[in-house]
Amino acid sequence: MLQFSASFGRLLLELKKLPGVGEKTALRLAFHLLRSPGNMEALASSLRAVAENVHFCSVCFGITEDDPCSICSGDRDDAVICVVEEPQDMLAIERCHAFRGRYHVLQGALSPLSGITPSQLRIAELLERLRNSQVREVIIATNFSVEGEATALYLGKILKDLGLKVTRLAHGIPLGSDIEYVDAATVQRAVEGRSEF
Amino acid sequence: MLQFSASFGRLLLELKKLPGVGEKTALRLAFHLLRSPGNMEALASSLRAVAENVHFCSVCFGITEDDPCSICSGDRDDAVICVVEEPQDMLAIERCHAFRGRYHVLQGALSPLSGITPSQLRIAELLERLRNSQVREVIIATNFSVEGEATALYLGKILKDLGLKVTRLAHGIPLGSDIEYVDAATVQRAVEGRSEF
Repeated sequence: MLQFSASFGRLLLELKKLPGVGEKTALRLAFHLLRSPGNMEALASSLRAVAENVHFCSVCFGITEDDPCSICSGDRDDAVICVVEEPQDMLAIERCHAFRGRYHVLQGALSPLSGITPSQLRIAELLERLRNSQVREVIIATNFSVEGEATALYLGKILKDLGLKVTRLAHGIPLGSDIEYVDAATVQRAVEGRSEF
Repeated sequence: MLQFSASFGRLLLELKKLPGVGEKTALRLAFHLLRSPGNMEALASSLRAVAENVHFCSVCFGITEDDPCSICSGDRDDAVICVVEEPQDMLAIERCHAFRGRYHVLQGALSPLSGITPSQLRIAELLERLRNSQVREVIIATNFSVEGEATALYLGKILKDLGLKVTRLAHGIPLGSDIEYVDAATVQRAVEGRSEF
């Protein structure tokens, strides 16, 4: 294949490391950037800035520029803590404006097959946070995948033994769905969790 | 929306300027990069390197790090020149290993509606190159879009007036196609351009 230049080849290699970016997308992105040197410079410097300034919050292990992060240092309800797998899950829950407590990011989920054991997650840090805290309820908001459910079961047992109220996000029919197209397991959970009208 | 940090927000903005990258893809890319600071640094420095080192070849207007580019300075057939719209078209033709002449990149196609006139393309530079050159044939390999065809017609007329042999890439059935699914205009061109068995 024609190699335009060594730098261009290296940029293609780096772009191909991104999720969902293959040979053709990398070429399209690279040629797009090449046409706008200003954007290329801005992207490079914003990447550098993130690499330098963004790190994990020492309290909740979400990502932040200041430590502790704005949620950990902000005026929120100290009695409830929501445990999520990744910082982007915090984002999804913040978007719904229905939760005003604190967060704790596990930075993953249990997955014995991939070698992810409890010691690799921020579980020790969560237990440390809960010790002598005002927390009364822990909402386990791990994903509803096999790994997320396993993590929820594992955590739930430990936290209940500490005498805490442990909850899990509700299962049910997503808003705007046609019931006929929803999978049977979800409908079953929706029936079990039905509420009075 | 929860703003993790100013730098992170700026990175999202820059990623969203890329073609095909919206809010969700930008978040996915940014979180992916955040998990691998090494890749983030490598991507930033490769962007910088391309911005600094890669420019247009002063002969063919393709992209290159050295001037003139490896094709312009290489051992190729000086009698044939292939005119393409963009550097990535050069790449596509080089990939087929069927062409050993030189290239000329127009850096676009005529499009009166978007205000792209002949003076904005590298047409004057092409005519300058052809003057007193050994070129006997010009292959017009612009795209088969409305703009590409218009550019081909425009260029074809000028080049024929200069007494050059002007050719266009063949139309026909793509390899591996089922004839029944190929559009009628393509089949018509394939019949017209049929060759003896």
